Amino acid sequence: MTATLTNHQVRLAKRPEAAATREHWRFTTEPVGEPAEGGVLVKTLSLSLDPAMRGWLNDAKSYIPPVAIDEVMRAGGVGRVVASKNPAFAVGDTVYGTLNVQEYMLIPQEEIKRNGLVKIDLRVGTIGQWLNVLGMPGMTGYFGLMDVGQPKPGETVVVSGAAGAVGQTVGQLAKIKGCRVVGIAGGAAKCDWVVKELGFDACIDYKAGEGAVRAGLKEHCPKGVDIYFDNVGGEILDQVLARLARKARIIICGAISQYNNANSMPGAGPRNYLSLLVNRARMEGIVVFDYADRYPIAIAELSSYLKDGRMKSKEDTVKGIETFPESLNKLFAGENFGKLVLQVAER
Amino acid sequence: MTATLTNHQVRLAKRPEAAATREHWRFTTEPVGEPAEGGVLVKTLSLSLDPAMRGWLNDAKSYIPPVAIDEVMRAGGVGRVVASKNPAFAVGDTVYGTLNVQEYMLIPQEEIKRNGLVKIDLRVGTIGQWLNVLGMPGMTGYFGLMDVGQPKPGETVVVSGAAGAVGQTVGQLAKIKGCRVVGIAGGAAKCDWVVKELGFDACIDYKAGEGAVRAGLKEHCPKGVDIYFDNVGGEILDQVLARLARKARIIICGAISQYNNANSMPGAGPRNYLSLLVNRARMEGIVVFDYADRYPIAIAELSSYLKDGRMKSKEDTVKGIETFPESLNKLFAGENFGKLVLQVAER
Repeated sequence: MTATLTNHQVRLAKRPEAAATREHWRFTTEPVGEPAEGGVLVKTLSLSLDPAMRGWLNDAKSYIPPVAIDEVMRAGGVGRVVASKNPAFAVGDTVYGTLNVQEYMLIPQEEIKRNGLVKIDLRVGTIGQWLNVLGMPGMTGYFGLMDVGQPKPGETVVVSGAAGAVGQTVGQLAKIKGCRVVGIAGGAAKCDWVVKELGFDACIDYKAGEGAVRAGLKEHCPKGVDIYFDNVGGEILDQVLARLARKARIIICGAISQYNNANSMPGAGPRNYLSLLVNRARMEGIVVFDYADRYPIAIAELSSYLKDGRMKSKEDTVKGIETFPESLNKLFAGENFGKLVLQVAER
Repeated sequence: MTATLTNHQVRLAKRPEAAATREHWRFTTEPVGEPAEGGVLVKTLSLSLDPAMRGWLNDAKSYIPPVAIDEVMRAGGVGRVVASKNPAFAVGDTVYGTLNVQEYMLIPQEEIKRNGLVKIDLRVGTIGQWLNVLGMPGMTGYFGLMDVGQPKPGETVVVSGAAGAVGQTVGQLAKIKGCRVVGIAGGAAKCDWVVKELGFDACIDYKAGEGAVRAGLKEHCPKGVDIYFDNVGGEILDQVLARLARKARIIICGAISQYNNANSMPGAGPRNYLSLLVNRARMEGIVVFDYADRYPIAIAELSSYLKDGRMKSKEDTVKGIETFPESLNKLFAGENFGKLVLQVAER
């Protein structure tokens, strides 16, 4: 039955030195195969577009192997099971997994675990929420803030990329935990939304001119920064380092300002890192996959906040697999407003 | 009786922009006063010369206030009580405290606690050992390694400034705790000593030419670096970052390569800091004073290793308070071999 289906795919054609543009991708078409015994065929509905994707294009040792040349681009997403020879998955099930930038993903039995394929319940959250607060960004924010940050009521939490996928979860969760929360985002619209809709105590517009971050941190963090959740790196990280409180914790989640360098090597490191010494502070990296065993706990907690309205989930949905190259780059230009989702099919 | 004594002192004349040279200091002479009720007069025997002293000369917020212009230079040291109106201290007692760069220190009763003045027992360690393994460098190494580093047997520990005061304690203690220990030091003589006398598994000579640190780390840390105790910062920190093992811990103790910059601001930060993310690693600053309550525990443990010969203490002793400006700079040129001690008086 599925043999008549056609799969459109986006493959890595060559490695980018700086930004990945259309020339670095190749669009392919191939027939969709049938699942073998124990396998599953998933139709992609929506894919998660994430800053980390840029890192996967570099031929460098990292927490995950690079995407190979000619390989279909790696992506997590939500899909629908359209054929199954596996008793754990039925046709019609909604699933989350590594579906990659393509319309259909055929997963053999032996790949299902490594793929991370799991059934999800759309009564718990929408597809968008499953890619945002209940998905990788939400898990990253949850475990980064709670496990590495260890927030205490009354502490000052600063989060960069505040209107982005991870940032919105971090800030709202920190508010729920009784912290004072200051966001950093680009542009007045995002900053307004973060304060008025998400309830952050303040938000600093890093695009508001030279010195805006420094002045904003001084104004909104008079007692220093207890926790900094860093999604951006670069100059903003340095400014926050200069305002750490004693025993501060910095969660290194990403460095989107640096990702378009070849080899993920930032142009410069944080000059103010000796503030860690003066303030007996700690800077620690987090990779969300390490917490996979505890995703269900985090999902249960975060979905309860979505239900009772204490947490909002904002997605920025773009449509059409053919827009992938330009859509991905919205992240690095800060053009997305909320979690960036690529809708490949409606249902 | 003490009124006939003369005190020679070294005072800060002006703040250095780069290295502190003789022109930044002023030599003064004044009569020695008598202790008032509850006070103590201490004759300086030996002073500890430490990299951190350079930081105290900068007019910048740090873990301790800067030394003021015209103030006697701050220094910790060992002395002998020569007059006392305090029942806790008797004439002839050997003491450790903030004696500063001068021949005599008069400490009023209300200053004794803040000064850190304590009696020490020369049967437990020599004056040199009390300034080294049993003093601030040893305490820094002990709590940095044990509390922040949390070494486990079989782990690979790298320590820079390996022949220096903190480094020698860290490396020997890590060996005692069952770790594989790789030092980084400047010159073949220091490296030989670190391996042959202190029992490190290897030592990398950072002066052995371009690429020596990178190659040495690759050779001696094939499974990556679990703990890095950083005394130097700069390019060596970056090289170690590039070789971290999963869940590595970096103890930021100092950055001697950067201290002769004004305002303690390094010229550049660690470019490879995103290795913290990839390796879920942690970089944390330590200030030894935070552990003052637990010094006795560390001294008891370390002195037992000195007694049973499992730990050695090497000091590099220079003589004469008038040599202070040049003696201090031996640290930044890497010219000291072991803990740098300034002997002011023999007894």
